[in-house]
Amino acid sequence: MSKVSFQGESGAYSESASKIFFQDKITTIPCSTFKQVLDNTEKEISDFSILPVENSIEGNVGESYDALFSSNLYAIGEIYHKIEHCLIGNGKLDDVNTVYSHPQALGQCRNFLQNGSYKTVPTYDTAGSVKIVKDMNDKNVACIASKNAATIYSMPIIKENIENDSNNYTRFLILSKSGTDLTNNDKTSIIFSIKHEPGTLYEIIRIFYENKINLTKIESRPKIGKTWEYNFYVDFIGHQLNEDITKVLSEIKKCTSFLRVIGSYPIATLS
Amino acid sequence: MSKVSFQGESGAYSESASKIFFQDKITTIPCSTFKQVLDNTEKEISDFSILPVENSIEGNVGESYDALFSSNLYAIGEIYHKIEHCLIGNGKLDDVNTVYSHPQALGQCRNFLQNGSYKTVPTYDTAGSVKIVKDMNDKNVACIASKNAATIYSMPIIKENIENDSNNYTRFLILSKSGTDLTNNDKTSIIFSIKHEPGTLYEIIRIFYENKINLTKIESRPKIGKTWEYNFYVDFIGHQLNEDITKVLSEIKKCTSFLRVIGSYPIATLS
Repeated sequence: MSKVSFQGESGAYSESASKIFFQDKITTIPCSTFKQVLDNTEKEISDFSILPVENSIEGNVGESYDALFSSNLYAIGEIYHKIEHCLIGNGKLDDVNTVYSHPQALGQCRNFLQNGSYKTVPTYDTAGSVKIVKDMNDKNVACIASKNAATIYSMPIIKENIENDSNNYTRFLILSKSGTDLTNNDKTSIIFSIKHEPGTLYEIIRIFYENKINLTKIESRPKIGKTWEYNFYVDFIGHQLNEDITKVLSEIKKCTSFLRVIGSYPIATLS
Repeated sequence: MSKVSFQGESGAYSESASKIFFQDKITTIPCSTFKQVLDNTEKEISDFSILPVENSIEGNVGESYDALFSSNLYAIGEIYHKIEHCLIGNGKLDDVNTVYSHPQALGQCRNFLQNGSYKTVPTYDTAGSVKIVKDMNDKNVACIASKNAATIYSMPIIKENIENDSNNYTRFLILSKSGTDLTNNDKTSIIFSIKHEPGTLYEIIRIFYENKINLTKIESRPKIGKTWEYNFYVDFIGHQLNEDITKVLSEIKKCTSFLRVIGSYPIATLS
């Protein structure tokens, strides 16, 4: 059975996403940092790594991109995982007056929490708050986490789907030591650096446009140092083994001071 | 004296940045959410709001951009604030075996922590960890936070500048109810939405390029809904009151389904 490294405690959303991607045919390894998640697969402690790269509410996960920048792993898949928050605890809904969770989860359930005038207590992570509430064994105290976290810690779910916005998705990349073949429904992720000279970004966008390649993501991040240099994170439709894409990548390489293809992988749909 | 709303506890990096920007001639109002930070100035409870928009290590602060999307405030300034982490506690360096802080700060001081083989305890925020360590009054326990947070809680600094990367900057925007005049050294921040049709982004980049306008930032964020629509966050050199920029903005408006100028403001330098 394949092993997948993820960041967080058992019951984290990253772990759930990996189980859905691999249809439960895996064992998972919790890690404390994104770097350890990647190192484990590079050192063959795990077969795959999973990293969150963007969230529909919070935006890009910069730390993941930085970890990918210096990694040698290839992206072999993506998954959009719906974040569905549950109120979890031993009491009934009327008993609860205090709610523990990660600040992001508390924010994403703000309407529910304000309507019920609950006291909130910020914690380090969602799955960890289930453990805290279980240990407290106080019917007035509940927490916000995933259904999976409730199952892992054998804790009752008081209410499901308490998030403000039901369109709360996190996109994850799955990485391994070897790349994938073409499926004709692929996406490619690249990282590149350019000097901040007028026209360089335009030139790169023009190459994509003239070759009819559809971008699905673009992000610039300044590299602060002696000179202003930018890293760009770009996703586009197509596989790097496709001849047209290979040609485009070699044209773009000429405009950059650094180019790394993170990988090409089948396009995921929003479920 | 002007009032500035910021997100976090007293001693937060946002508060320090606002004090530097206004040369200490302000009082500050701590807020629990980014939305409250903006609401306070919209309702004239404060004169200004300060929001973190990007960090050189962590990337963009998606939540800030979402708060700005639906705000009516104008950006009137930016500041790059260097994040310098201190080890704070009542003991000497040799006494310390446990370090409390926010996970991001712990990560940014990873080398220091690994060299000393410290036990780490994640907390909700950096300034809050100073309060915890003060209350514990245990010389074996320290925390990581700003020099300002140490001062506020009257706690000794054991060691300064313990971060891995000394190029750790957060960029903040300062917002108010009215805009600024031209200084001839200005930057403009805009948010726009486009339908995901081939060529739209290219067309916008082409308009900037052909009008010799230099982009300093670009980020796409998918709006997940019935159709794929994208929000873009773009910064460029120039002031919206400049005639050329006004013309460019009206050309770009035609390519978008939504365009909001967050504001034009003097360009900050990295100090």
